[in-house]
Parts: sequence; C-alpha cells; structure tokens
Amino acid sequence: MAEGCSVITFDHEHVPPAHLRALETAGIGVQPSSAALVHAQDKITMREAIEAAGLPTPAWRHDFTVDDLRGVGDALGWPLVLKVSRGGYDGRGVWVVEDEARARTVMESTELVHGAAWLAEELVPFTRELAAQVARSPSGQAVAYPVVRTVQVDGMCSEVVAPCPDLPEAKALEAQQIALRVAEALGVTGMLAVELFDAPQGLLINELAMRPHNSGHWTIDGAVTSQFENHLRAVLDLPLGDPRSTAQWSVMVNVVGPRDIEGLPPLTDAFRHVMARDPGVHVHLYGKSLRPGRKLGHVTVVSDDLADALTRAHHAADYLMGVINE
Amino acid sequence: MAEGCSVITFDHEHVPPAHLRALETAGIGVQPSSAALVHAQDKITMREAIEAAGLPTPAWRHDFTVDDLRGVGDALGWPLVLKVSRGGYDGRGVWVVEDEARARTVMESTELVHGAAWLAEELVPFTRELAAQVARSPSGQAVAYPVVRTVQVDGMCSEVVAPCPDLPEAKALEAQQIALRVAEALGVTGMLAVELFDAPQGLLINELAMRPHNSGHWTIDGAVTSQFENHLRAVLDLPLGDPRSTAQWSVMVNVVGPRDIEGLPPLTDAFRHVMARDPGVHVHLYGKSLRPGRKLGHVTVVSDDLADALTRAHHAADYLMGVINE
Repeated sequence: MAEGCSVITFDHEHVPPAHLRALETAGIGVQPSSAALVHAQDKITMREAIEAAGLPTPAWRHDFTVDDLRGVGDALGWPLVLKVSRGGYDGRGVWVVEDEARARTVMESTELVHGAAWLAEELVPFTRELAAQVARSPSGQAVAYPVVRTVQVDGMCSEVVAPCPDLPEAKALEAQQIALRVAEALGVTGMLAVELFDAPQGLLINELAMRPHNSGHWTIDGAVTSQFENHLRAVLDLPLGDPRSTAQWSVMVNVVGPRDIEGLPPLTDAFRHVMARDPGVHVHLYGKSLRPGRKLGHVTVVSDDLADALTRAHHAADYLMGVINE
Repeated sequence: MAEGCSVITFDHEHVPPAHLRALETAGIGVQPSSAALVHAQDKITMREAIEAAGLPTPAWRHDFTVDDLRGVGDALGWPLVLKVSRGGYDGRGVWVVEDEARARTVMESTELVHGAAWLAEELVPFTRELAAQVARSPSGQAVAYPVVRTVQVDGMCSEVVAPCPDLPEAKALEAQQIALRVAEALGVTGMLAVELFDAPQGLLINELAMRPHNSGHWTIDGAVTSQFENHLRAVLDLPLGDPRSTAQWSVMVNVVGPRDIEGLPPLTDAFRHVMARDPGVHVHLYGKSLRPGRKLGHVTVVSDDLADALTRAHHAADYLMGVINE
C-alpha cells in the first residue's frame, strides 16, 4: 500500500465483472481481482476451476435443459441438487429435488438472472459440513484459520463450532490445504471461505466465498486476529495476523428473525436480559430491522467447555429470537 | 438509557466542574457526574474522600506554604513527594524532592493552575505498583478486572502485566475490594482505575482515574470484555460484560516517542516489520505525530507463558521506538 492512498471497501461479490474490470483498466487496485472474483460469482466457473486444479468436488453437470433432465438424473442419481449458477445465496437458488418431475417444475417456474445457467450436483451423503478459511495477500502470504463445523438450517448458516469437534488432525490439515490451494489456484486475495462436505468418499468442496464469512464470525471474539482484520491486512498487503484460537472452543449461533415477529419485544430489551444473565456472551447485532428469516446478528461464546459454550450461545440466541422467554 | 437518546462522549476529566454542573442543571445526564469527577480532578479532594471512607492512603499534608516545609518534612520524612492538586498527569505535576531546599525551589519555580494547591505525600517504600480497575453503573452494578502490575518510567505507565504475577489471592481480592469501595464511596460511574502501592505496611491508594486507563489497555486483546466496552455499558446503565482474562497472561507495553526522533523510520514501516516477525503481537497505534516522550501507541501480547509474552511485547515496542533495529 502506498502512503497516502485511499481505500474504499464495498461488497463487490455481486458487482458485474465488467464494472470491476473497468476500475482495473483505470489503474485502480481491486482486491480480490475481477478475475478471481468471477469464481465466487458464478458457480459453473468455480466448479470448472476447482476441477482444473485437481481439487475434490461433488459430481456435477451443467448446460442442460429440461429435456436433458433424465440423463442428468441417470448420471447423478435422484434426489439431486439443482442450482442456478448466479444470483443465489443463503439457500436461495438451491433446490433439493426428488425426481425428474419436480426438477422440471423448478426449472420451468424459475426465472434466471442475466448470465445465469442451471447446474446439478449429486446429493452428497455427508456426515457434517466444515468450513476452512484462509487469508491471502497479493504477494502470496497466506494463513489458515482452524477448521470449523457449520450447521445449516434452510440453507443458511445457523451454528459454527471452532475448531470442529473430533476432527482428525490429518483431515483438518487436508481441509486447510484445500483452502490454501483454492486461494492460490483462483488468485484470491483477502479472506476466502471454503465450505466442505465431510463425506464417506472424503472432503468435497461445496461453495466458496471471497470475503469475511459467517463461518468466521467467531474469530472476532475467539481468535488472536479476527477475519475482518486479516481481510484488511490481506487486501492491503500488510503482514497477516495470527489466525489461531485464543480459547479451546468458540461457538457462534446466528440470530435470525423468527417466522412470527408479532409481539416480539425489541431486540434491545432482549439484549439487556441476555447480557445480565450471562455477561460472558458476546452479542453482535447488525442494526437491521426485524424480518422473518433475516440475519439480525450473532452470538459468540468462548469457553474451555464445549457443552457449556453450546448451551450458553443457543440460550442467548433463542432468547433474542423470542423462542424462549426466560 | 431511553430509546432514541443521543450519547456524546468526550474526555471530561479536565473540564471545569462548573461547566459539567451547568449541563446537569440543564437535565443532561453526565457520567461520571461532576460530583464524582471532582475527585479525579483534584488530588486534595480525592485524598480527603478516601480518608473519610476509611480507605488506605499514604500519609499526606496539604495547604502549606514554603514556610511550612520544615514541619511537613518532619511529619512525612525526606525525601517526600510534592504534588500539585490539579493540572498534572503522566508524571507532570509530581516531584520527588530530597530535602527542604529542593522542595522550596520546586514550589517557588512552579506556577499553579487556577484552583490548584500543593500537597505532599510520604515516599512509600513500595515493592511494586498495582492497578485495580472496576466498572460501575448508575444503578450500582459493578465488576472488577483482574489486578495488574504496572511499571512506571518517568511517572508514565510503561508496562502492564495481567494478572499481577505472584500476587497472593487475598491481596488481589483486597485490591479489588478497595477499588469497588472507592467507586461506591465517590459515586463513580463508568471505568475507575485505582493505582496502588504494594508496600510493607499494606496496600495504599496512589492515584485514581475515572475513565478507561492505560493500565487496562490489555483488556482489548486479553479480556472477555474490554474496558472500553464496559465503560460504555456502565455509563449507559446496560448490563456489564465479563471482565475476566481470556488467557493466562497479557503483557502491555507502551510505545513512547524516543528522546532522539531524528532519522527514525516511519512507525508504519516498523509496524510491518513487527507484524511480519510476530503475527501474534497486537499493535495499537494512535495516529499521533512523533514527539519525544509522547504516548504513540501500545503493544499487547497474550500468552500462556509470561516470559514469552514479556519478551515479545518488549521486542515489538523497542522496535517501534527505534531502540533496536532487528
């Protein structure tokens, strides 16, 4: 980073690549670059790059129409996962379909955004989902965070445990190496999250995110250097901070707007109760208005006792969401 | 805190009490109140209140002139500590004087700020200096941080170790109770730091600060809830966060502008070196321009090994100050 330069940060994962390339052509540094970012914007481009790098991915097909669905099903088996290549996140744009008829209905009733196409993936019989986060600088320096276990509800991250319990060291190392290889192969700068399936056939790459990610929110309270600090360090090509945990266990639980928000007390009231009950809970609210299914914040508990951390984090999140009132 | 209220934060420790009282009269909440704050603004008022509360303080005298110095010396012994009651901080306004002649010279060559007077204290033969920090809310909720050991150089905090090594639990508890009693007796809200001498005759109160304090900077990286967060929680009467340490040892070392700043490389260059050498160091720079003797920042290292934390924190601070160049 040159002295006196300006840094503008914005979420550019959903910005059209042509706009980013225009900035790059004008001599403005864009991190991650448009060339790297396209892999986070387009699932087909991502899967092709992952395969080209020899990295493990579920079996998949793309560029098919409703008339090709039988062949796709024969290749991947039913049920399978239908996805749109662009425009989906937090479970949107992803369907688990039982059979050809259901797949046809989804495809015929869904309007694709500009440039998007269909892809299909085998439904992996995973035992758990993991996330491996790394930070990587333009000069190639990289650090890997502890591998975490994520729990998804309705396609949205719900709970993260860091590090993943009972994960053999060799598999943790393999997950970190996959993430480092993805970062290098795709030229990622800043934070990269690689979501993985832990399956009988081994680790398989599910999704990528080239930014600080929900699976790394625990690092604010539980790591020497948070994912947000290391993201800035990485894109500015400053030395990266230590990604290690400061405590044995960190548990993060998302605070999501409940289905029924009628009569729910203001989050600020619930927040007081939660803090008064357990002063060791870290409550992070994003200042968003209440809406069913919306990520409103998260709760992190750091502890030497995993059961204790899980109980306390879920209690706080449940109270904030009005699931319990004590 | 009422919904929709505005919060204005400023360092009001040096604001004239009459100005704060005017705000209070106008119905604006001032935390800590002018009545509490006067004890941090005036060392005579503070010592009187401390004594009235039955809390331990060094022997002291006040309201004397140069002609009374012999009697003051007879009472407290030489050398003694001369202080101005107002307007001093970070070692300014404090003199250790060997004898009557030197005391006379200091008093005759020092212009007191408006409302200030002289006080004299016995020079306590302390074995070490401690600091006990508490946060206290208007509603009376209070939490106590681990008691730390502070090292002062030229009257300015130089190093803090949390918790104080080899401090018997009973004495740590006593220091915390002193701080809690001071906070209650003086009606302090927000953070209070009580600087203590650990002396053969027991713990003695040296100074007070009613704000986040240098002795608590380690809490940003080493405690569940930092002193800054708990200061805001306390003055807003929100539930207080857990003050406990997250690791066994935290070491904070101040980064102070060296005497000779000629040819010193920019702090930002040194910062890169320090972070690249030891990614686990937390470097906090305040964005101030370089000036000899000025507090420019601090460094914190959190570790399970005290010797390791001390070595790494001092190395980083020394490098930033140009004391070493490797």
